[in-house]
Amino acid sequence: MIKLNCDMGESFGAWSMGADEAIMPYIDMSNVACGFHAGDPQIMAKTVALAVEHNVTIGAHPGYPDLLGFGRKALNFSESELTHIVLYQVGALQGICSQHNAELAYIKPHGALYNVMMRDITVFSAIVKAAASVKLPLMIMATPDNHKHIQLAQSLGVRLFFEAFCDRAYTDDGHLQSRQEKGAVHQTLGLIVEQAQQIIEQQSVQTTSGNNLPIKADSLCIHGDSHLALASVKALRELLSR
Amino acid sequence: MIKLNCDMGESFGAWSMGADEAIMPYIDMSNVACGFHAGDPQIMAKTVALAVEHNVTIGAHPGYPDLLGFGRKALNFSESELTHIVLYQVGALQGICSQHNAELAYIKPHGALYNVMMRDITVFSAIVKAAASVKLPLMIMATPDNHKHIQLAQSLGVRLFFEAFCDRAYTDDGHLQSRQEKGAVHQTLGLIVEQAQQIIEQQSVQTTSGNNLPIKADSLCIHGDSHLALASVKALRELLSR
Amino acid sequence: MIKLNCDMGESFGAWSMGADEAIMPYIDMSNVACGFHAGDPQIMAKTVALAVEHNVTIGAHPGYPDLLGFGRKALNFSESELTHIVLYQVGALQGICSQHNAELAYIKPHGALYNVMMRDITVFSAIVKAAASVKLPLMIMATPDNHKHIQLAQSLGVRLFFEAFCDRAYTDDGHLQSRQEKGAVHQTLGLIVEQAQQIIEQQSVQTTSGNNLPIKADSLCIHGDSHLALASVKALRELLSR
Amino acid sequence: MIKLNCDMGESFGAWSMGADEAIMPYIDMSNVACGFHAGDPQIMAKTVALAVEHNVTIGAHPGYPDLLGFGRKALNFSESELTHIVLYQVGALQGICSQHNAELAYIKPHGALYNVMMRDITVFSAIVKAAASVKLPLMIMATPDNHKHIQLAQSLGVRLFFEAFCDRAYTDDGHLQSRQEKGAVHQTLGLIVEQAQQIIEQQSVQTTSGNNLPIKADSLCIHGDSHLALASVKALRELLSR
Repeated sequence: MIKLNCDMGESFGAWSMGADEAIMPYIDMSNVACGFHAGDPQIMAKTVALAVEHNVTIGAHPGYPDLLGFGRKALNFSESELTHIVLYQVGALQGICSQHNAELAYIKPHGALYNVMMRDITVFSAIVKAAASVKLPLMIMATPDNHKHIQLAQSLGVRLFFEAFCDRAYTDDGHLQSRQEKGAVHQTLGLIVEQAQQIIEQQSVQTTSGNNLPIKADSLCIHGDSHLALASVKALRELLSR
Repeated sequence: MIKLNCDMGESFGAWSMGADEAIMPYIDMSNVACGFHAGDPQIMAKTVALAVEHNVTIGAHPGYPDLLGFGRKALNFSESELTHIVLYQVGALQGICSQHNAELAYIKPHGALYNVMMRDITVFSAIVKAAASVKLPLMIMATPDNHKHIQLAQSLGVRLFFEAFCDRAYTDDGHLQSRQEKGAVHQTLGLIVEQAQQIIEQQSVQTTSGNNLPIKADSLCIHGDSHLALASVKALRELLSR
Repeated sequence: MIKLNCDMGESFGAWSMGADEAIMPYIDMSNVACGFHAGDPQIMAKTVALAVEHNVTIGAHPGYPDLLGFGRKALNFSESELTHIVLYQVGALQGICSQHNAELAYIKPHGALYNVMMRDITVFSAIVKAAASVKLPLMIMATPDNHKHIQLAQSLGVRLFFEAFCDRAYTDDGHLQSRQEKGAVHQTLGLIVEQAQQIIEQQSVQTTSGNNLPIKADSLCIHGDSHLALASVKALRELLSR
Repeated sequence: MIKLNCDMGESFGAWSMGADEAIMPYIDMSNVACGFHAGDPQIMAKTVALAVEHNVTIGAHPGYPDLLGFGRKALNFSESELTHIVLYQVGALQGICSQHNAELAYIKPHGALYNVMMRDITVFSAIVKAAASVKLPLMIMATPDNHKHIQLAQSLGVRLFFEAFCDRAYTDDGHLQSRQEKGAVHQTLGLIVEQAQQIIEQQSVQTTSGNNLPIKADSLCIHGDSHLALASVKALRELLSR
């Protein structure tokens, strides 16, 4: 059955973001920020405890080292540099998890790192190498053709999970529409649930130009920083439990 | 036999510190900075690779989150906050180590965190709890009376290593003299070797007032940021191989 | 007439704090965070523009370099180091103000820096020296005896403003009760208005033990991060315009 | 007469970079790092004091907010965001300068910000607007055609200084060769002095392909982080005083 995943632990220091405590009970997988784009050791510990309490699977959500920009700016690093940047963050979260005897179950990159990974096979390779190193699956975006991703991941012994987005608009090339553009983020619950239903039932998603792209997803992602986040996870939980 | 340990990987970004490549061949244990007071994912990866190349044991060297102050300022955190701060850094280094199939062998706190740990049993407890969580030994300072440390560590199943300092002056209460004060750091190779010899042969150290404190050390520490660092490790390596 | 001041611009990057847009119309003086404990160049620019729009006086609100701890941890710096830390932040805000032809009108330290300044004359001296350097008045806490502060400030040609707090409990020694302790922050509008009224009309404040301390304030401070902040500034504005 | 300028104050916290004390006596203009790519309030204060001592003109050397990458990574900011980022840093240095009654005399961006400014007129515009706001001249790179730069700067009332590089290779399009490529930084004093001489005497520079580009410079830049930096400034000082 398809799983619900949500970014969690994206507060920092005295600043709050997201409604983690309200959302956690409704999701299956929590992508926990690791301190580079959001999160700090205290917030990570609190988030891991919350996930454990609700039997939610914990994944690492590493980003570019860019606190000021919330990891939404692409930064030019070499392949091996990126592998180290991901390993650092994944390891850090594993350290925090150790206190709860919680196991880290997967890696899902954040923001610009996620977007660049989907467009640039060298960046994807850097992250797969990190995943191989810590022996964890990697969650990436389901696109009409993930052939190259699957091939590279298999060659390094890394399992891939595929996710689709319910609250973001898709372009015809199978990417998410840039947040800079209007309509990038769905603003009604109806649109979100409709997109989820199509992904689950028809294994496809409608693009901004009206095309239907075939995608096969293991998980549905809801962004926790939206004002519709809580309503969305409740509606999707309901949808999935029918 | 007594081991030589040295702080390593304390560069940051474009800034260099220490003569890691020159010193690594002469030491047994490298305390690798974890990004909070010094070090970054690239420098950590390079340092781990260097340690592996020279068969040097790798330890985590976590500090307070204080890059600007090089971890030499005490910061007021609660016990559980400090546990998380240490777990984050230790885990991060384990993540980096995974790429070399290198095992992390121990934890040794840095700078102010080390000093506060030796003076404040709550801070010591925070760090022991982190060590227990990741099942690693903890290296602390050999003092005339480590009774309370041993008791607390044993109760949590954490093994302790004890180290003595060859290049720092001791006060009568068994602590290191503050770096703010004159004479805190030995400025001649003669003084350093002499102090090492006394620690090894007589299991004692002479304080600033001329007293001899009994201490029993598993390891001797040399500070890598001193201009005498390389000469010291060479002289101590020679001393230990007699 | 007594002025209302409020801390403003304490968001950071993607994280929001405070209801600046709602509160700004009701206050006289805005203490704008300068990037060390909160704020960044974009948030500072937005806050300055908002203050200019509402004809609100702009003050610099420098803090310790401690983003993670929101400037609420005391850090051990020398006197001259602190002067530089304050000058950096005040200058940075002046740079931002230049775009709006806005004049910076005063300095009011934030959080731990404010508290330490009130307790430690060396830290106060460091900040007065910064104020003298940029030729700006300094806002400090009105206490029953500000004699030493006045003397030192006068000797360096720095004008002092004195503020009192409406939403915080006072201890008998004239300091604010620590946020660690219960009752440190007033939780009802009634308490806040009552304290304001006593400060304005009787030039005194009641301490946690029931004593009345004589204090003479030029300004009343309301903390913008409280859930009562907006209601408080409205009530106090009303009180002051009678 | 042509002036010598050099980047100064590029240490950070406990980490040193450059031979500022040795180089300062030989230069005319010091570009002082402002804390975003390098420098901190203490280092800025020390650098300003050193410049004042040697009667060296002080310029602001702002960079992208990228301490880890030493400001050598381009970051995607909007025009107004960049203006604020520059104003923040320039103001911060003015704050520090106030303690020495030293006047800031110009702005020269650092690293990637400098390179992007030379290639992208929107980024140039952002920086000119900051310069206009604080009423300071801006130093940019002398290229065969600075027409667009001059036009835009004049329209905002900003004076431009033009500099040429003695220690970096030029490409045929009048830019500096990327540091990623071999030969980007001259490795012999002979090459550096030769390039300087050609710039001064013939108002041209030879590119990597052997072409001569006409450039007209007010100032020659020497990079302070090169091992040849001190020898270079001495040789160039000698050259200029003939």
